[in-house]
Order: sequence, then structure tokens, then C-alpha cells
Amino acid sequence: MKGRGKDGLPPKRVVKGSTSKMNNVQSQVFRPVPFPQVTINDLFWAPRLRINREKTIPHIYAMCKETGRIDAYRLQWKPGMEKTPHQFWDSDVAKWIEAASYSLAGFPDPALEAVLDTVTALIASAQQQDGYLNPHYTLVEPDKRWTNLRHGHELYCAGHMIEAGVTHFQATGKSTLLNVVCRYADYIDTVFGTEPGKKRGYCGHEEIELALVKLYSVTGNQRYLRLSQYFIDERGRSPCYFDIEEAPDMHKLGREYHQAHLPVREQTEVVGHAVRAMYLYSAMADLAYIAEDQTLLQACKRLWDHLSSKRMFITGGIGSSMYNEGFSSDYDLPNDTAYAETCAAVGLVLWSHRMLQLECDARYADVMERALYNGVLSSVSQGGKTFFYVNPLASHGDLSRQAWFACACCPTNITRLLASFGHYVYSQNEREVAIHLYVQGAAHIHIQGQQVVLRQETHYPWDGHVTLTVALGQSATFALRLRIPGWCSKATIAVNNEPIDIQAMSENGYVKLERAWKHADTISLHLPMPVVRMYAYPDIEADSGLVALQRGPIVYCLESVDNDIPLHKFVLPRTSSLQADFESNVFEGVVTVAADALALDTSSWGNTLYRAESPEMYPARLKAIPYYLWSNRGISAMRVWMREHP
Amino acid sequence: MKGRGKDGLPPKRVVKGSTSKMNNVQSQVFRPVPFPQVTINDLFWAPRLRINREKTIPHIYAMCKETGRIDAYRLQWKPGMEKTPHQFWDSDVAKWIEAASYSLAGFPDPALEAVLDTVTALIASAQQQDGYLNPHYTLVEPDKRWTNLRHGHELYCAGHMIEAGVTHFQATGKSTLLNVVCRYADYIDTVFGTEPGKKRGYCGHEEIELALVKLYSVTGNQRYLRLSQYFIDERGRSPCYFDIEEAPDMHKLGREYHQAHLPVREQTEVVGHAVRAMYLYSAMADLAYIAEDQTLLQACKRLWDHLSSKRMFITGGIGSSMYNEGFSSDYDLPNDTAYAETCAAVGLVLWSHRMLQLECDARYADVMERALYNGVLSSVSQGGKTFFYVNPLASHGDLSRQAWFACACCPTNITRLLASFGHYVYSQNEREVAIHLYVQGAAHIHIQGQQVVLRQETHYPWDGHVTLTVALGQSATFALRLRIPGWCSKATIAVNNEPIDIQAMSENGYVKLERAWKHADTISLHLPMPVVRMYAYPDIEADSGLVALQRGPIVYCLESVDNDIPLHKFVLPRTSSLQADFESNVFEGVVTVAADALALDTSSWGNTLYRAESPEMYPARLKAIPYYLWSNRGISAMRVWMREHP
Repeated sequence: MKGRGKDGLPPKRVVKGSTSKMNNVQSQVFRPVPFPQVTINDLFWAPRLRINREKTIPHIYAMCKETGRIDAYRLQWKPGMEKTPHQFWDSDVAKWIEAASYSLAGFPDPALEAVLDTVTALIASAQQQDGYLNPHYTLVEPDKRWTNLRHGHELYCAGHMIEAGVTHFQATGKSTLLNVVCRYADYIDTVFGTEPGKKRGYCGHEEIELALVKLYSVTGNQRYLRLSQYFIDERGRSPCYFDIEEAPDMHKLGREYHQAHLPVREQTEVVGHAVRAMYLYSAMADLAYIAEDQTLLQACKRLWDHLSSKRMFITGGIGSSMYNEGFSSDYDLPNDTAYAETCAAVGLVLWSHRMLQLECDARYADVMERALYNGVLSSVSQGGKTFFYVNPLASHGDLSRQAWFACACCPTNITRLLASFGHYVYSQNEREVAIHLYVQGAAHIHIQGQQVVLRQETHYPWDGHVTLTVALGQSATFALRLRIPGWCSKATIAVNNEPIDIQAMSENGYVKLERAWKHADTISLHLPMPVVRMYAYPDIEADSGLVALQRGPIVYCLESVDNDIPLHKFVLPRTSSLQADFESNVFEGVVTVAADALALDTSSWGNTLYRAESPEMYPARLKAIPYYLWSNRGISAMRVWMREHP
Repeated sequence: MKGRGKDGLPPKRVVKGSTSKMNNVQSQVFRPVPFPQVTINDLFWAPRLRINREKTIPHIYAMCKETGRIDAYRLQWKPGMEKTPHQFWDSDVAKWIEAASYSLAGFPDPALEAVLDTVTALIASAQQQDGYLNPHYTLVEPDKRWTNLRHGHELYCAGHMIEAGVTHFQATGKSTLLNVVCRYADYIDTVFGTEPGKKRGYCGHEEIELALVKLYSVTGNQRYLRLSQYFIDERGRSPCYFDIEEAPDMHKLGREYHQAHLPVREQTEVVGHAVRAMYLYSAMADLAYIAEDQTLLQACKRLWDHLSSKRMFITGGIGSSMYNEGFSSDYDLPNDTAYAETCAAVGLVLWSHRMLQLECDARYADVMERALYNGVLSSVSQGGKTFFYVNPLASHGDLSRQAWFACACCPTNITRLLASFGHYVYSQNEREVAIHLYVQGAAHIHIQGQQVVLRQETHYPWDGHVTLTVALGQSATFALRLRIPGWCSKATIAVNNEPIDIQAMSENGYVKLERAWKHADTISLHLPMPVVRMYAYPDIEADSGLVALQRGPIVYCLESVDNDIPLHKFVLPRTSSLQADFESNVFEGVVTVAADALALDTSSWGNTLYRAESPEMYPARLKAIPYYLWSNRGISAMRVWMREHP
């Protein structure tokens, strides 16, 4: 990745201020191995990333163009004209720029780079004299700037544009957009803060907080770090800024909706809008890392524990309620009305990944993997051009992916996540390399003065055998941390065919192999992945008496296209064997699951709606497919949880 | 009941036109034995009716007075004043008048009669020169009369006032209000109809249709029958009147909401707002009866079959969705979000009772009984002064009865139903008496030239023994039809200690005992009522794998006040015995149910939300109470359906 030092830290040449704190990374924390140093050539992710590159990124650009999101920056809209620039539009364009930039970093594409040049120049041309940048508030409501932080999304859009500017610079070395967002951030810093004359506000939709940390990381300008810290520290203080600005509580959802009900360090429960929450917590984790803020780390850990133990679907989806697009109450995890917004699952990946750098604990990686392989990946079709905004765990066949949404946050979020997927596979610090995800390919790592190539060979997630080989010039002593997934209870490891005592070598779910590694050392990891019946915590009423199927990290579902019997009539005996088959002709090849089950019989009921005799059942074969694949073969009913016969 | 002939038919003295059709009742159809001829002295209903008389009726009058509903008829409201007369208000006052009148008919009360005199005189004073009567449209929106039939509720209010006028006249012999509603109906008849210059409209909320049949029955004026027929015939025709009047579709629920999507004779599925639907179908059944309209009878039978076999809760509640306060799709019967409006269950009783007169088929009585003992009776507290508007089948403890509602249709509906409860127990025609409900007390019946007193001795619904004795001057030949409830599979009957072959004597769920009855003949009916496990049709997903408890007509529920374990953790083994106990110290004495069950154990789960091991269970005793009694001992969680361990 251009513009970055080879160790993945911000390049010195753009550092304007001191980055001593940032470089003073404690040896026990990790940083991601940047995705341009990670190659992926497996049969699972590589095709998805190719589709993202070849189909999704162009599709999203076309939609942004068609809907007026790009041309809004010409600032030629006038009242009465169509395609009125909307408050959110900047964020869509910005996330597309991020996705396209990530893509360019790994796969040079002069045509795409030219489009990016044009778009970024156009955006630059729309920046106001004072640094402000937002077509909606420049053209449509010019007198409303910064008057409705609660719902206006100005700082949210600024945040996404800052992320875009940073990523575009890192990927291309071009500072067109980076300079724009620095000017914009400088201006924002003159507007917001605790100093007299400044507004003590913060955005109703968190995002700028994590973006400013990125801007600090790439520029080294402490001003951005301090501004991020200000936004984090101010949120939830009394009196609440939303009351001061008298912004209407449009959705009547209270301060919790914006995580502004308490100072963030006092928050113990994940509440409110799920995407807002994830972006906030990600920024808190960033500041815990960059500024070594233990109080933020403790808050993050409490919140993460709460989320992962009480408010997460088995798919890694989060946010139970359409009402607030977010959290409801503990264990309230309904399947058919699950909101589970795509952006929220993406946000959970962003946050969990940050937590994983702070503490190399497999529970963060387990959740990240669960979301990636299920609730995130479900959001985009195999063709790459249609998307789910919500990802419920059951459907009666009334849901299908859409090519676009008026509020297009989800398509743009999934595309930027997939474009940077390699980012999530490995981490390192000065003496250790952690392998979080098993994906065939390689990582190019600089450690202990050596360039090391760590190669993975595996058919994960369809097969649990992983062969890791180490290539390096000279022997070097460092540790490899291999994650033992939480779903796997019988892992085995051998180094150069010598078995390893996993129990003895485990730390927080990772097997730590520390030694003087020499060229061609080979690690054989075996993660047996039978199909298992999964049960939900008994307070999740929606899943009581029900069972889900999981194999490795993949959660399965029944889809009506594979099953003649209405899905709610299936009853799976606890003792029936579950058969996994690799079907090479289903998409790029997937493992499906079949089982001898029972089906509820209605033939003896006549017109009776309630009766004293229990329903009869007859034998029926069921077939399940990976959840992420559902709704790719036409309109279909689906369910993850099915009734069990104990 | 004053003003009525001793055979329950309209008294001749008020008949202005021909009632030949109405008196020409086919011998096979029945008419209710009017409730003033029915005495009730049991331990179940009699206390409820006393509370209704002594607490509920005065409470509702006080609320109507306090909220301005009574004083609205002074027509002194002016813009800017408080207590703006609302579109619905007339219906609340009217239903209170009905309830109070019913009460007076059985229990003379000079003080109440004086209040009624005052209120009816006040209402009469508010009638306009042309006969119009509605304070809202007279004072608040005087230029909007008949402009919004879709949502305006004018004809709905007129209908309730007509019912009030009829009942007040029947109960007291006073024609103050009857004259008012006749004038009003005459005026309405000049406004609506197919003749040139008339509006071809009908009300968005059905009610006037059944009211006009009542007005015809008491006055014999064919004009009212024809107007009712017009409203029924016009509904659902193309073009839709709601489009013609350009009334906004306020709730965006379409014509189905008003059952105006098809001509009523072509309707095959119960749709839309549940109360609206029940009132429409009741009127259709009335016209099928009065006008011997076979096409309406067939439509009613189709719709009733659809409702009772696909869209009814086990409590007799109907209307699954808060969204439209009505029906959703077949078998969509969610427990915690069930709307099951009180008025809809009352409406189901009204309709089923009408169907029962047309065809003496126990399935109508079974549904009527199911609703009465469960989904209707649940709506009012034991104290009689608080009410449920919705009657879900599960609650997390966030629901309690309220003293009043801005939209107060439910309290006023339950009170008028209870005040006329005796109406639902017996029917007769020229040669037969049908006993639909088992309630200790007596019926005074004129049949075959004899005055017959039919006496019931029973502790129903707590005990299934019923002793019927016949008292009459001379022996007379007629048939007694005794309903064998659908919940009872092992009924036995003896007449004067001679066993009866039930199978041989049954017609549509009634045992027909036809003979020359002589004084002191005794019928012993035994309806064994063990506690039974009830199962829902397998397409009701909400109840899959669950079981409910029922004993006799009473549906049971778990309430948290009786159970230390969170209710969703109970699992009832299919084989555990169910113990029924009469607890004399619980309210007026009720049968509760206890069982050895299991409870889901969370102790081994730690922070795990999903795992591969099925949940453990431990033995736990559960206690269930009648559903209708829930939420009478403070805020409490509740559920009807519980998980079963097969």
C-alpha cells in the first residue's frame, strides 16, 4: 500500500506532528498486517472478492452516478430540480471511494483510478472557502449548517469522507482528497470543542470519531486525535447537547438511540441504533489503543461482553428491532423480525477486529468470523449486484435482495469491507504474528528484521485442514499465534510433524508457537468440523425448543427451494445423523447438509384449529445450505432455527 | 322486558309496517330466549354480572361524564374550549345506555333510570332540525357532515345510538331515545341510497347495518330493513365509494380494512379490521335470518369457517395484528403481539350467536363459549373498573388493565355484553328449546301453549355435572336440544335416570330430546372435564412445539405471580399428570391446575450465548390459572402456550 511504511505504520513523510504515543505501541498489542501484504487465493473468499471488484464496485459507482450522488458535487442543484442532494449522500460516495481505493491497492486498474481522480477532483471543487463540504447543507438547507447534529448527519458524512481521503491517499499516494478532508477537519475543529465560542456538540450518528483517528494516524496531526477525543468525551454528558440545540427527537427514541444517554465510559449496555453503537465503540477501541486509554478499554470490554453474551444473533447479526434499527432488550432475538442490518454486522467486524488488536483473545476473532461468514456475507448476492439491508434469520419468502436503496449505507459498507478483507486475517507486533482467520493465501510480514512469508493452504471453511509454511531468509525467533476457533473442540497441531500440546500452549484461545523459525517449517493444523446442532441460551425465547446447524464457522439454514415441505413443519430428531456433502455444482462449490427428519402432519386435522391430540409426524429428509447463500436462487422461504425432537 | 311480547318477538303495538317476513320465521331456525326471561344464580357468572351492574356501569358513566362525552350533547362547545367532542364519543355513550338499559330490565334501579332519563333527554335535545345527531360534526366540523365516510364514524355512531334507542325502549318502555333514532334513521335514509341525488356511500366502520335490523324488528318499519340491506348490498361494489368521496386512506390499509374490497356475498376470507368485520358479518347474519337471504347465509358460513379454522386464537380472541387492529394471514397467530381486541371477541360472540340461531350447530356455540369464558372475560378486571383493550396470550409483565381509554370502545362493549349475558344461554323456536350454555339458573319459556320453567343446577365451568329440571303445568311435547361441548368427548345423559344414547340422538353437536315433557322431569348431563393438553394446528408457527392447558371451556395460563421460575423456562413433559384443584380462596373460587414440569437450566452456560450442548433441565412444579383471571394480582408476566417435552 503506497504511502505506508513497510511495517504498516504511518509513513514518516506525511507526519506533521508527534506520533510518539502512537508508535509507542505496547509489545503485547497487535496491529493488523495490512491487506496489500496479504494475498488470498482460496475457493471461498477469492471469488467473492473478485465479484466485489468486478461487479459490485462498478455497480455502486453506476448507482451513485445515476441517482445524482456524484453530480451533487457540481453544486448546480437549485430548488425545484430533481435529485435533491440528501443529507446522507456524501457517505455513500465516500464509502465507494474507500472500496475503490482498497481495490486499487491490491489490483491496479488505470480506468478505475481515472474515475477516482475525476470524482475526488469534483469533490475537492465542492469544498467551500472555509473548508466545509456537504452539498445538501450547501445547496438545500444552507442556513441549517450545524443546527441539527442529532439527525443532520453532517459530521457522519464528514467522517466517511475523511476515511475515504485517508484510504485514497494510502492506496494511490494521491493527496487530492486527503488535503480536502484535512481542511474540512481543520474547519470542524474550529467549530466544535470545549473552548469558548465553540459548539459543545457531537454527531447523532457516530463515525467521525474513528475517522479522525485514521486521519491522525496517516498525518500524525494531534489536532485530529484531540478532536476525536473531544467528541468521545463529550458524548452523553449533561446537559445533553441535543437538548441544547433543540433538535427534534425525530424518531422519539431518546438519547439511547445515539448512545448519548451516559458518558461513554459509564456505559455498560449496548443500546440504541446498532450501527451508531458499533462505530462509537470502534472509535473508543481506537482511542484505547492509540491513546492507551484504559478507561475506554474497560468500557469497550464491558460493552463487548454484553453484546456478545446477550444481544447477538447466531449469524453475528445484531440489532433486533426495526423500530430503532437497533437493540431492544437482553435475549430478545426474534428470527423473522430480526433487523440485523448489514451495516451493523459490518460494524461488529470493525469493532471486534479492533478489540482483537488490543487483546489477542479468540472470543473477539470468533465473533468476527461468525459475522463475516454469516451475517455480513449474506448481505450481498452471489452476482454482487443486489443487497440485503436487513438480514433476518427466517423469512416466509417475502424478502429479496435489492439493487439499491434510497438509504444506501449497506451496499457501500459491504463493498468496502470485502475490498479490505485481507486486513482481517493476520496481526503482528514486534515479536509475534497472530493468525485470526484461515484463508488460503500468504502474508508478507516484516518481523525481527526478517521478511517472512507465511503461507496457508486450506479449503477452509469447507475443510478444517490448514497447512502453514514459513518462508524466510534466515532463521528468526518469533511467535506464531494460531487461533483455535471456539466452534472447534478437537483441534490438533503438529510442527514439522511433531504434535503440539495445544492445552499447554494456549493463551486466550490462541496456540502460541514461539521458536526460532527456519525456512520451510511447516505447521499442520487440523480443525475437525462435523455438523453440529447449536442451541441458544434458554432465555432466548425465540429459539426455545429449536436447533440450528453449524459446521465450522458456517451457520446453515433451510431454504424452501431445496425442501418441498413448508419449512416450519420440519422437526429434527436429536439423534438423527447429519450428513455434510461438498456439492461442487452449487455456486463455487459449497458444503450442504442433509438429515433424516420428521415433518408435522396436518392430514388428520380437517377444519380443526386446536385439539387435544398432539400432531402426528412422518419421516422427511431435510436439506440445509449455508445461511449466507440464501435467496440466491429466486424468492424462497428460509429459516435458521428449526424445531427439535429431543 | 317491557315492550316485548311474551314470545320475545317485537310487540305489536309499535309495529308501524308489516312484519310478516320477520314473523314468518322458519320452524328450523331459533330465536334467543330474551335475557329478562333468564335468571342466573351460579357462582361464576352471577358475581361477574353483579360487579358489572354495581361497579362497571357506574364507572363507565362517571368516565363518560368526566371526559365530556355526556355534556357534549349540551352543544355548548366552542373552538378553543377543552373536551372537544370526538367523532367516536356518541358510540361510548350509546353503549353505556345499552348496558344500563339491559341492567334495568333485569334489576330495576330508580336512580339509574333517572340518570338514563336525563341522558336520553339531553341527547334528544341535541338532535338537529333535520334529524341529524352528532356533536362532533355539529360543533367541531360542521361543514364536514357525510364527507368522510371512510374514517368519520358518523354512521357507526348512529348505529350505536340506534341500538341504544331500541334497547332503552325495550327495557323501560320509554320512547324518548327510540323516537330520536327513528327520526335520525329517517333522515339518514334520505341521504343514502341508490336513488338519484342520494349518496351511494356506506360507513368505513360497520355497525349501523345490524342496528337498523334491530330498529326494524322493534318498529316493524320496512324502511329501516331496506336501508340496512342497501348498506350491505352496496359495500364493496365498484367503483368504491371511498374513492368517489376521495376520503384519505388514513391508515394506508386499503379497502380490506373496511371489508369493502369485494361485494359482501363474494367475500370468502375474513380480512381487515376485526371489529368492523364482526359487525358486518353480524348484520349479514341478521339479514340472512330476517330476509331469509340464502346468499348472505352462505357468505356468512364461508367466512365463519375461514375465521374459526384459520384465524382465531385458542382464547377466542381474533385479530393478530396491531397494524390494522385486525386480521393478517392464515395461521398467523402470534402470542405476545396478539392484538385480540376486546371488541373483536365481543363481536365474535355477537356473530356466532346469530349463526347459532340460523343453524343450531354446536360449532357456533363452541366458539361463542370459547370467547365468552376466555378472550372476552379477560378484558375486565375482577373489580370491574379496569379493562384490557388488547388481550394477548403472553406478556412479559408490561401490560395491565386501564380504567379508561381515549378510544373507549372496549370497556363499553364488555359492559353491554355482560349486562345482556342471559341472552346467550337459550334459544327456542315453536317446537324446540336449545340449551347452548350451562349456567345455573332458570329460563321461563312459552312453548306449545305452555309456560315452561327450565332449571339448571350446576357448578359449571368448574364441574361438568348439570341437572336440568322441567317445570310446567301440563305435559307438553317439544324438543330440548342440549349442546355437547366440542371439548367434551365422554358426555353422558340420563332422563329421569334412564341413560340416553347420545350418538343416536345427536344433531350437529346437540342431543335432541323430543318427548312429551311432564312436570319435574329431570335430565342429568355429565360432561367430564379433565385438564387436557391442547395443541395448535401445525401451521400456527407461534405454537409449534408448545402446549396449552384447558379444562372444560376454560383456557389456562401461567402467571408469574404463581411461579418463581421465569415462565418461558417451563417445559411440560407430555406424560406428567395435571392436577386440578378448586381453590375457594382465589377470587370467588376457581379451579387451578398444577403439574410436575421441568425448567430450563442456565447455570452451566456462563457467558455463552450459543453452544453445541442442549440445555439441561431440572424438575419444577408449575401452577396455572384460568386465562381470564390473569393480571388481577398486580403486574405479572403471563403465557398460555408453554413448551412441551414430547
